[in-house]
Amino acid sequence: KHVGILAVEVYFPRAYVAQAALEEHVGVPQGKYTIGLGQQGLAVTGDAEDVNSLCLTVVHSLLEKYNIDPALVGRLEVGTETLVDKSKSTKTLLMDLFPNNTDIEGATIINACYGGTAALLNAFLWVESDGWDGRYAIVVAADIAAYARGPARPTSGAGAVAILVGRDAPLSFDPRTRATHAANVWDFYKPDHTVEYPTVDGALSQVCYYQALEDVYTRFTEKVTLRDGATHGGRQFTAESPDYLVFHAPYNKLVQKSYARLFLMDARAQYARHSAEEKKDESTSADQDEPDPLAPWLDVPIADTYNDRALDAVLKKRAATSLQARLADANVASQLVGNTYTASVFLGLASLLDQAGTRDELTPGKNIVLFSYGSGALATMYRLTSQFTVKSMATTMNLSERLASREMVHPGELDYALETRARMHRAGAPYSPVYPTVGRLFPGTYYLNGIDALFRRTYSR
Amino acid sequence: KHVGILAVEVYFPRAYVAQAALEEHVGVPQGKYTIGLGQQGLAVTGDAEDVNSLCLTVVHSLLEKYNIDPALVGRLEVGTETLVDKSKSTKTLLMDLFPNNTDIEGATIINACYGGTAALLNAFLWVESDGWDGRYAIVVAADIAAYARGPARPTSGAGAVAILVGRDAPLSFDPRTRATHAANVWDFYKPDHTVEYPTVDGALSQVCYYQALEDVYTRFTEKVTLRDGATHGGRQFTAESPDYLVFHAPYNKLVQKSYARLFLMDARAQYARHSAEEKKDESTSADQDEPDPLAPWLDVPIADTYNDRALDAVLKKRAATSLQARLADANVASQLVGNTYTASVFLGLASLLDQAGTRDELTPGKNIVLFSYGSGALATMYRLTSQFTVKSMATTMNLSERLASREMVHPGELDYALETRARMHRAGAPYSPVYPTVGRLFPGTYYLNGIDALFRRTYSR
Repeated sequence: KHVGILAVEVYFPRAYVAQAALEEHVGVPQGKYTIGLGQQGLAVTGDAEDVNSLCLTVVHSLLEKYNIDPALVGRLEVGTETLVDKSKSTKTLLMDLFPNNTDIEGATIINACYGGTAALLNAFLWVESDGWDGRYAIVVAADIAAYARGPARPTSGAGAVAILVGRDAPLSFDPRTRATHAANVWDFYKPDHTVEYPTVDGALSQVCYYQALEDVYTRFTEKVTLRDGATHGGRQFTAESPDYLVFHAPYNKLVQKSYARLFLMDARAQYARHSAEEKKDESTSADQDEPDPLAPWLDVPIADTYNDRALDAVLKKRAATSLQARLADANVASQLVGNTYTASVFLGLASLLDQAGTRDELTPGKNIVLFSYGSGALATMYRLTSQFTVKSMATTMNLSERLASREMVHPGELDYALETRARMHRAGAPYSPVYPTVGRLFPGTYYLNGIDALFRRTYSR
Repeated sequence: KHVGILAVEVYFPRAYVAQAALEEHVGVPQGKYTIGLGQQGLAVTGDAEDVNSLCLTVVHSLLEKYNIDPALVGRLEVGTETLVDKSKSTKTLLMDLFPNNTDIEGATIINACYGGTAALLNAFLWVESDGWDGRYAIVVAADIAAYARGPARPTSGAGAVAILVGRDAPLSFDPRTRATHAANVWDFYKPDHTVEYPTVDGALSQVCYYQALEDVYTRFTEKVTLRDGATHGGRQFTAESPDYLVFHAPYNKLVQKSYARLFLMDARAQYARHSAEEKKDESTSADQDEPDPLAPWLDVPIADTYNDRALDAVLKKRAATSLQARLADANVASQLVGNTYTASVFLGLASLLDQAGTRDELTPGKNIVLFSYGSGALATMYRLTSQFTVKSMATTMNLSERLASREMVHPGELDYALETRARMHRAGAPYSPVYPTVGRLFPGTYYLNGIDALFRRTYSR
């Protein structure tokens, strides 16, 4: 069936702040955001955009660029955590883009940054299913990451990605090699009705991200090793097996550290297998020549490895070349745009398609391993395989050029933009946005026209 | 594969108010709620229960009653519109019921009252799919319907339903005979962050419900007629074709009127076919003896039929017998419990299983047509078929007996309970519930223990 991804479209605001300029503006040491977080830029949006406008923009653009007849869409699903309504879903708003076609399944999914992945997996299932009616599915992930003043604010961002799903896809999904991690943790959540901002425990979030990665990676490697066994001579799947990887990216430094941890996972798994063999046959135990720099961490409790700077240094060195080869392409866009929550892992995929796709390196048979994480927590690792060239997808997206065409604004603009959002959140109804649209948005961007006395939102373009 | 429903469990609060007593208490004419809305009782809950506690209760109970090993569950999905968090999903909270099993897909879906149906359709797709790992899916729908003082308050309610999904099910789903309606309308939504209550346009909601029903019924009848053609000699599907029907039930009167409208749809469709045939062969036009009482409404614009009392009276008479035979069983529980939003259509199914199942009338081959509606709007009509006896499901649910064992409380309790909820909504954190739990909840009910200073919610049982 080759169910998978037929096309990808990306939207991000036209205005951005450079992280280096933000460091200076805020008065933190140089490198705190650029090296400490690994970020270069941050998309800025005020009260003239909301999750509905973001989704309208990116879906409209997907339909237009790929010349898709709205009648040929049978499923539309949204992932977001920037809700403007607890009941009316963003999916219903998007129905305005499908005139005379009411026959579209799918709703809105929430689970922190994971909602888009849940929607994508559902879309794959739908296209694969017996009752499929032959039409496309569209999955949209969109968020505005807005934080209160303080250390988290430089991890703000905004963006949306729309994905077209169908059969005979250039990027096909393998349903038998996915692994999921779900747990009840309070690392990042949005319980306070009076503000848009999340309640965050940054240190806990990092540990939860690591734990989810460990859990899915362990089961994913087992499944892939088993599945590819026949074709690859039973070779063990490792951090260097995939051609490319895409990670959910709250900030680039976390992606770097997390990917490096896979080398620890590999070493520990090999050590465990070796120990098991040793017990069977003592004679095989002395064939290691060089001392393994990871030796001190091969059998300590895993929890003791989360905040070990010496280990971090060893892993960083160990992973550097592979990180550059396998993850750098995916991280380009998110380093420039910032955190986009549900859209983040898809923005990473778009970035990879743009970079490696344009160089025509994503040739048939190349595989991509994706890791999606949502706080709370829910995570999935899965695999896509390139079936034929994705170069046309990359060309149509035109991502690099659009990123380069953004307008760099003064770092003070970030505070102003987020203040307009905070005021909107408190204002009730009616409300008219004050953040500029003319000259500030890319042509064709939907924006919030206003909220009437009955809280009904209308959009212009 | 016979993918479908293996088991159903229901939860509703132990305290309820009689609608007749409420009429007297509020000072409205006798019959306004009992006949005007068609409701008999209304489940009452205060600030000691929230959507998470409702889901914990009903999933725990499902696992316990059916003796399901939590390790054998591979998917868990929640539908709700009573969100307590914009990011952290209720699904993650439920992971506490699955110790040592993190390998569970699924998130939380919102689309007004439709979220549970979206989750159920996803679960069916998952169990049917190539990558299915053989484990169960659980779908939970839970809501607390709370309205501001005024005419909508008697349509409050609270409840939760958990559904176990797998293969070789007693109630199997036919993926090829479903129809969906999606549109962007503002009939019911929850945009106001300062209150729990929805913004409602009751008159518009009724029209949107009718329109969704028309749209899905038209396409559903086409599909069923085509699909059953070979086995049933191409007989046209009508409102009297299904053995049973289950409708989303905001209040019973709307279900009565909506089902009756299917007879208008049937008559108009027959009239249209007849007119088309007449054009082909004029001679077949004079074979109608009795005048059709629906004649005045067969070719008027459909919008003119929504608020026509003369038509309502004709349809009521026409549908009465079939309504009693096909829908009465499904409506028993919701008339006693009130609106349960996402859980409503599933509560209807549970009620049908309880009533007809206990009488052993849901024999193999019997079919059930379900209509799920969520404001905003999204609706689906689909069909389940009984494969073997559902009597044991009915016995295990024990629904009638549990409904009869509730405690009737003074109608003033409704205002008090909802005031505690309104106060909690305004209070921020930390917060301790004040609504009584001891003696007021069924044994085994989870309740909100408290909200700490960081807005983290904990639950006791």
